[in-house]
Amino acid sequence: SERKNLLLMPGDGIGPEVMAQAKRVLDWLQKTGRADFAITEELVGGASIDAHGVPLTEAALAHALAADAVLFGSVGGPKWDTVPFDIRPEAALLKLRKEMGVFANLRPAKVFDALVDASSLKPELVRGLDIMIVRELIGGIYFGEPRGIETLPDGSKRGVNTEVYTTGEIERVGRVAFELARKRQNRVCSVEKANVMESGLLWRQVMTALHAAEYPDVQLSHMYADNCAMQLAKNPRQFDVIVTGNLFGDILSDLAAMLTGSLGLLPSATLGAVEPSGRRAGFYEPIHGSAPDIAGKGLANPLAQILSLALMLRYSFGQGANAALIEQAVENVLAKAGRTPDIAMPGRAKISTSEMGDALLAEL
Amino acid sequence: SERKNLLLMPGDGIGPEVMAQAKRVLDWLQKTGRADFAITEELVGGASIDAHGVPLTEAALAHALAADAVLFGSVGGPKWDTVPFDIRPEAALLKLRKEMGVFANLRPAKVFDALVDASSLKPELVRGLDIMIVRELIGGIYFGEPRGIETLPDGSKRGVNTEVYTTGEIERVGRVAFELARKRQNRVCSVEKANVMESGLLWRQVMTALHAAEYPDVQLSHMYADNCAMQLAKNPRQFDVIVTGNLFGDILSDLAAMLTGSLGLLPSATLGAVEPSGRRAGFYEPIHGSAPDIAGKGLANPLAQILSLALMLRYSFGQGANAALIEQAVENVLAKAGRTPDIAMPGRAKISTSEMGDALLAEL
Ligand SMILES: CC(C)[C@H](C(=O)O)[C@@H](O)C(=O)O
Ligand SMILES: CC(C)[C@H](C(=O)O)[C@@H](O)C(=O)O
Repeated sequence: SERKNLLLMPGDGIGPEVMAQAKRVLDWLQKTGRADFAITEELVGGASIDAHGVPLTEAALAHALAADAVLFGSVGGPKWDTVPFDIRPEAALLKLRKEMGVFANLRPAKVFDALVDASSLKPELVRGLDIMIVRELIGGIYFGEPRGIETLPDGSKRGVNTEVYTTGEIERVGRVAFELARKRQNRVCSVEKANVMESGLLWRQVMTALHAAEYPDVQLSHMYADNCAMQLAKNPRQFDVIVTGNLFGDILSDLAAMLTGSLGLLPSATLGAVEPSGRRAGFYEPIHGSAPDIAGKGLANPLAQILSLALMLRYSFGQGANAALIEQAVENVLAKAGRTPDIAMPGRAKISTSEMGDALLAEL
Repeated sequence: SERKNLLLMPGDGIGPEVMAQAKRVLDWLQKTGRADFAITEELVGGASIDAHGVPLTEAALAHALAADAVLFGSVGGPKWDTVPFDIRPEAALLKLRKEMGVFANLRPAKVFDALVDASSLKPELVRGLDIMIVRELIGGIYFGEPRGIETLPDGSKRGVNTEVYTTGEIERVGRVAFELARKRQNRVCSVEKANVMESGLLWRQVMTALHAAEYPDVQLSHMYADNCAMQLAKNPRQFDVIVTGNLFGDILSDLAAMLTGSLGLLPSATLGAVEPSGRRAGFYEPIHGSAPDIAGKGLANPLAQILSLALMLRYSFGQGANAALIEQAVENVLAKAGRTPDIAMPGRAKISTSEMGDALLAEL
């Protein structure tokens, strides 16, 4: 089989630090003959602005489009807060997602047994929690036109963004959610504001029709986004798969991730359509952001980045066994090794980003 | 002084039940000579659809516009899930808010001492919590044009909504937030998605300029909406006043309310501009919704509706002493009386909606 291309984009803040540990795991896979990737690396976000004046060069984008999968770190930070809107670090992330066509963002919110007490919720509410949030990632208000800031005749301003969803966009992400549910607890909760927004009403109608036509065996419910935030805070275990649009997904998936107490351990996978060739674009990034406040200090937890690598092995390369190896090693490390500050616990040594990498490699 | 007009709109679900208890408190105020309102009542939402075919009649709207304050219950329920979008129950609420011009929705998220253990968060994270969320209520994606669902040439559909904010809309709600902060802990956190949406970028710029020009003595910070959801879940006491747009405010204020564990006790006040005559429109409603699942069973907690009445006395009628009387009675009832199911606790009798009303009146 031909050699697969893997692009690494560490980005800003803690991105390079946690990516360095993921690279050690990749090295180990390559050296032990478990994997054989052609690996390249590109700057992205603020790091690319500093080097090239733009957050994503044409060359970096071309590499991402040609790669069989992209492993991404994180972008942004106060250093670039004043750059113009269209070349801010986040623009690179949004452009990569859009150009790669990765529309289905899978964000697991899972509580690791060893971390039940790290949640701000009472332990009895989160023990065993395992939700999968499927967020539409290349539509909605993130990309809709018209958008921008205009100056009115009286000199004041008007800022505009447009939420747009089409039948096709809703169906394709809905299918991903229903398919995932069949391998889990077979329940999908679709989230919008159909009581206020017509785009949400269409979302609800399309999900309802798709369910009846193709997935009648799956249990479908609907919830307003405000209620979903409340239900996540009150009793998160009521959910199996949640499917929602780009903006609600941004907020609800971060909320769910935080509620687990395991934010530093949560990976994400974003998939495109299966092309006629069988190829499927894949983009992998941790849920946590660039965390500029702790960057460069060896405080970051590298496990979310490493688990994103595991998801990549499973979803993009069919290497489920390698993925499981890594996931088991993470469980073992959590059960016995020291802890990075985000998941610190009395009685466990506090260790650094690279020491966590050491512990994981020792386990592997 | 001339007699003030008060309009009651109980609405649907538990609305009429909790309003019935608020009316008992009003009666008591009138009979003891503490207040002298001309009180009228109108159907709204599903109840108005059933009676008149529309969720808000012209006459009801005219009464609301002429009233000195509106005390609102809640609207909506599965019974009206299939009515056309433009005459659904929620349309009445949105139209009332818009026509009355009540742009500043004040949503306190407060933990009552007696209810610390009712929160899903660990008690040490919520004890003493007291956040004020100021939500812009008549702009943003709730009202922006264009909006609707169109059919495309291939027969598929496209749903559109538009988020719009102008300098003036942002400034006026910003002023309300800064003024409130001065009477509290003097800190405002402004929330948007300026890293993704231009309307959010304008929001941030206008808040920053307003702060520098008129409120340099108040501490201003900015936060992305996804991060705000996480921070509320992680450490809600870091906030004093949060100011945000209509859609983010919908989600974040419900989340904050749920985290307190006191959802059945949280009122809200929505205020318009101070008119040249000194008049200021005021709209008062509990944070909780119509809760159709428990409606008609005597299970609802009437205290949020009664505390909304107290806010009305304070903000619309300058009757701070009457408001304080009611608020103190609520604290006393929580400290010793039975509990409605939402705040039930071992060792306390479970009581019904009207029994909670009895307890409160006994206290008064
Ligand atoms: C960095 C930002 C543009 C991004 C988003 O809003 O999608 C982030 O919050 C995320 O959830 O991946
Ligand atoms: C009922 C609904 C239209 C309303 C809203 O979205 O504003 C409600 O959720 C609220 O927060 O008051």
